[in-house]
Amino acid sequence: MSSPDVFAVWAPEPESVSLVVAAVGGDADLITVAMERDEAAWWRPVQPFPPELVGRGGGRADLAPRELDYGFLLGSDPAPIPDPRSRRQPDGVHGLSRTFDPAAYAWGDQMWTGRQLAGGVIYELHIGTFTAVGTLAAAIQRLDHLVALGIDFVEIMPVNGFNGSHNWGYDGVLWFAVHEEYGGPAAYQLFVDACHQRGLGVIQDVVYNHLGPSGNYLSKFGAYLAAGHNTWGDTVNIDGEDSDQVRRYILDNAAMWMRDYHVDGLRLDAVHALTDTTAEHILEELTVETEALSTFLGRPLSLIAESDLNDPRLITPREGGGYGLTAQWNDDFHHALYVSLTGDTSGYYADFASLSALGKVFENGFFHDGTHSTFRGRRHGNKIDTIRTPTWRLVVCSDNHDQIGNRAAGERLSSRLSSEQLGIAAVLTLLSPFTPMIFMGEEWGARTPWQFFTAHPEPELAEKVATGRKEEFAQMDWDLDAVPDPQDLSTFANSKLDWSEPADGAHAELLELYARLLAVRRQHADLTDPRFDRAVTRCDDEAGWLVIERESMVLAVNFSDRPAEVSLTAPVQEVLVVGAVATDNETVRLGSQSAVVAVRQ
Amino acid sequence: MSSPDVFAVWAPEPESVSLVVAAVGGDADLITVAMERDEAAWWRPVQPFPPELVGRGGGRADLAPRELDYGFLLGSDPAPIPDPRSRRQPDGVHGLSRTFDPAAYAWGDQMWTGRQLAGGVIYELHIGTFTAVGTLAAAIQRLDHLVALGIDFVEIMPVNGFNGSHNWGYDGVLWFAVHEEYGGPAAYQLFVDACHQRGLGVIQDVVYNHLGPSGNYLSKFGAYLAAGHNTWGDTVNIDGEDSDQVRRYILDNAAMWMRDYHVDGLRLDAVHALTDTTAEHILEELTVETEALSTFLGRPLSLIAESDLNDPRLITPREGGGYGLTAQWNDDFHHALYVSLTGDTSGYYADFASLSALGKVFENGFFHDGTHSTFRGRRHGNKIDTIRTPTWRLVVCSDNHDQIGNRAAGERLSSRLSSEQLGIAAVLTLLSPFTPMIFMGEEWGARTPWQFFTAHPEPELAEKVATGRKEEFAQMDWDLDAVPDPQDLSTFANSKLDWSEPADGAHAELLELYARLLAVRRQHADLTDPRFDRAVTRCDDEAGWLVIERESMVLAVNFSDRPAEVSLTAPVQEVLVVGAVATDNETVRLGSQSAVVAVRQ
Repeated sequence: MSSPDVFAVWAPEPESVSLVVAAVGGDADLITVAMERDEAAWWRPVQPFPPELVGRGGGRADLAPRELDYGFLLGSDPAPIPDPRSRRQPDGVHGLSRTFDPAAYAWGDQMWTGRQLAGGVIYELHIGTFTAVGTLAAAIQRLDHLVALGIDFVEIMPVNGFNGSHNWGYDGVLWFAVHEEYGGPAAYQLFVDACHQRGLGVIQDVVYNHLGPSGNYLSKFGAYLAAGHNTWGDTVNIDGEDSDQVRRYILDNAAMWMRDYHVDGLRLDAVHALTDTTAEHILEELTVETEALSTFLGRPLSLIAESDLNDPRLITPREGGGYGLTAQWNDDFHHALYVSLTGDTSGYYADFASLSALGKVFENGFFHDGTHSTFRGRRHGNKIDTIRTPTWRLVVCSDNHDQIGNRAAGERLSSRLSSEQLGIAAVLTLLSPFTPMIFMGEEWGARTPWQFFTAHPEPELAEKVATGRKEEFAQMDWDLDAVPDPQDLSTFANSKLDWSEPADGAHAELLELYARLLAVRRQHADLTDPRFDRAVTRCDDEAGWLVIERESMVLAVNFSDRPAEVSLTAPVQEVLVVGAVATDNETVRLGSQSAVVAVRQ
Repeated sequence: MSSPDVFAVWAPEPESVSLVVAAVGGDADLITVAMERDEAAWWRPVQPFPPELVGRGGGRADLAPRELDYGFLLGSDPAPIPDPRSRRQPDGVHGLSRTFDPAAYAWGDQMWTGRQLAGGVIYELHIGTFTAVGTLAAAIQRLDHLVALGIDFVEIMPVNGFNGSHNWGYDGVLWFAVHEEYGGPAAYQLFVDACHQRGLGVIQDVVYNHLGPSGNYLSKFGAYLAAGHNTWGDTVNIDGEDSDQVRRYILDNAAMWMRDYHVDGLRLDAVHALTDTTAEHILEELTVETEALSTFLGRPLSLIAESDLNDPRLITPREGGGYGLTAQWNDDFHHALYVSLTGDTSGYYADFASLSALGKVFENGFFHDGTHSTFRGRRHGNKIDTIRTPTWRLVVCSDNHDQIGNRAAGERLSSRLSSEQLGIAAVLTLLSPFTPMIFMGEEWGARTPWQFFTAHPEPELAEKVATGRKEEFAQMDWDLDAVPDPQDLSTFANSKLDWSEPADGAHAELLELYARLLAVRRQHADLTDPRFDRAVTRCDDEAGWLVIERESMVLAVNFSDRPAEVSLTAPVQEVLVVGAVATDNETVRLGSQSAVVAVRQ
């Protein structure tokens, strides 16, 4: 049942289900329509549909007029419950659902043949804070900035239905809806269309590993949830009794974004929390269905996992015995770079103390590839087949929403590093052979923080979130006064980008460096060459320098506050420098906090 | 040495090499420029370059003015020899080479993000006979016909430098040149650009398994050739002494099409003739370099092999232990379909006598997958991993340049089949889950033949080709009077498409059917679903019918001259019919030579 009729609902739990429905905009009371159950526990309205709601569809429920508010009555409960597959929630996740016909939009991207992930650069953004207005329509106005920067993909943090006006998006409970404050599904179509017409692909961040704390009515319908919960909330029943239809809920949702909204790929939140004991892992099943959809649509569709498993099986093609995901985030890159820049070796950063950790990432992909993880107290990860796996299957960044937002005050790297250090981070990330990702505003070293914000209407939930946040940081000995209240509206407001910044002084200089680096990335094939074995790295922890040679290209970096002199294996010609650098034949003199990109001659 | 300077040439054989060069258009005599050899046997002009030839480049040989005629003097031989990597041969393959700067063209396809093969439909054409004029410029005028038809990729038969004015293209000797009569490399860029601006991808047919009989000077430079030759000509040294640079000749040529000419993929002629004993097969090496180029260019690049090995290793990704080619031609589909349509079981068609052969192809890809081949007198092929290999990796057709051109008089299927039979062939090919390929004119059942034509200027070669052709068909007991002389200009002229046909009667009807089938292909996801195990086939050789069910979709075909009645497993609704068909619930009555496409309800 991959495309149920508009009002069909899977509900094995209740003894009876009825539909309540009203035309949008009228003052009419809700009309109750009887539903009947099929053998698979899908309920559909009994036909014919009430005449006062019948439009041009002619009486068939699946051809009803476009806009209706509706909900379901389950058993004897008199309160209507929203549709688990609702496309719109104009009055929030507890209110009635509203019909939305995705086929009604006249797309302007007919010439769009898709964009492959290989070779691409991703820009992660959060609709609510990317602009002051915080809508999809407002975000369209800033797309030309991304094109000028040299971006290939926009990655949008979750837009699904969550409770309250604003939120990171990971508290979603209605996965098929587009958050109304962002503009809803119609605005979403306009946004994707606008991206495609500028050559930008769109990756949607989706969360299948848990549900948010408010507005989750799924268990009233059936066995959507697994016993227990993870760090973030209730978990989903993907391998228990009745899980076939729960898996379809996930698979159909994934297909919806790519088919109905023309999205080019999905970022799968925290797949390590998708415990699946069935013989075909939900990730492999998702790959199979996505490949079929890609063939049908005739354009590439990418699946990118956030995973802390360091398990190469995720990104190994199915023909090689893997799950066949397109790519995965590589946190080891971030950690090694962060430690190299800041010297911070607390918590899980401990194992990354040597610059050789970053060198190993360039040569092998994962730092933890079967090595001991002090933080985990056990071996962690497995080796990537570096002869056959392309480097671009790893997505890397120097900062992202999680790294920034999970610092006490949501402070960016730019709040604590020198402009030279930011330049070094950019050189190593944007000229890496991996798939680089930039977090919105990073490209100009935005002064605005990006904090943890929520807008739970329920007072007890609001209290719980605020207290929980404080307790979390108290355990880590952070300054609690610096931890903003997630529920305070200013926390959200403070996190919005300030678009007056990028034209300004040091911001403009960093922005220009980012654009130059992305241009350099496209000029030298050896930078993006996906062969791991092209990398030869050397470092000196004492002196603080790291050299990465990839065939004709050399990246030499000095993290330390003291100058360093490095001998190369061949004479080079400078392409770009950060800080004070002097190149003399095969010798590079690197001033404190400096970097050079060079071509071997 | 992947990008040698314009005049650099690999020549380990001669004791000395000099460059002879003249500005284009002048009456000046050729000027001789000394060259010097490096340790890898690459020769480059001694600098500075003669002042009378120096343009804006300022004296460096690699920055010489754009257009120069040139050749090489090898040892004491006074006759200049063309450049093995020549981009242009204005006076044919024996004449001087001419410089061509591919970077000078201002491309109009900046928004082109490439086109993936999966889900695509290919149109094979020969530039010389696609239009009356027979040039790339004339071909551009017909691209809108392909767009209206629903084509995704244009596949161009070889355009490389061959001797004489016209030829199929497989007699190439200067692989880096674009045949001058087609318009040369500048026209080629315009053609690809015009395709991209219409959403059409371009696949170039390239020949690395042999060299044509005239104009092959390669062995004067070095060990380009292997001992012996195959059916078609001299073979190439890909695993003998000095083969590293010969492999670079192949690899650099492949990259040239995709990088300099923006081509989206290559069709690799007869890869079964590329015998390679090195540990990294040339096909795998080509895959590796093409993947790197694809990442650098940020768009999909497809490699499609013509192979009669039925070896799934070719299309298995490298991560799965294969060579990683994108796709391969599947002759078994053609053979099974051809036998079903014509009843011809001569020669290699013998094993395909039962309709179950075609059914097996739909279910397993290869008919010969380890089965006995009567024609070969041994087991042939191996099984495709149908759980993991997508169906679109097989390219299928009902006719192609080889099948047509290698019939005595170059007759198409349309010259001997009824319009209903042509409709059946189209239904099974265009609605198959494989990658369909149409040969130019097939879509309207062109009356024009497509014959074997050559234009060898050498009388002895002309005689040999004509005689050879006759002898070949004499062995097969064909009517020799029907075999046209390949050297006769009318043989070439007769093979040109007649563009007055498609608007006309039965031609227009067939054309409309092709367009409808390609539209239907895009409407029903189950048709292109790449899972082999979606197919369930049944047939009755006695009655002459074949049914292919793929989830919701049913294709039922009656090849015979008698009506047939077939019971289906579920009630269906007709989508499209060919011939006389009556569907009644779960029963389909198929008139003689008919087909129905239906959706299960």
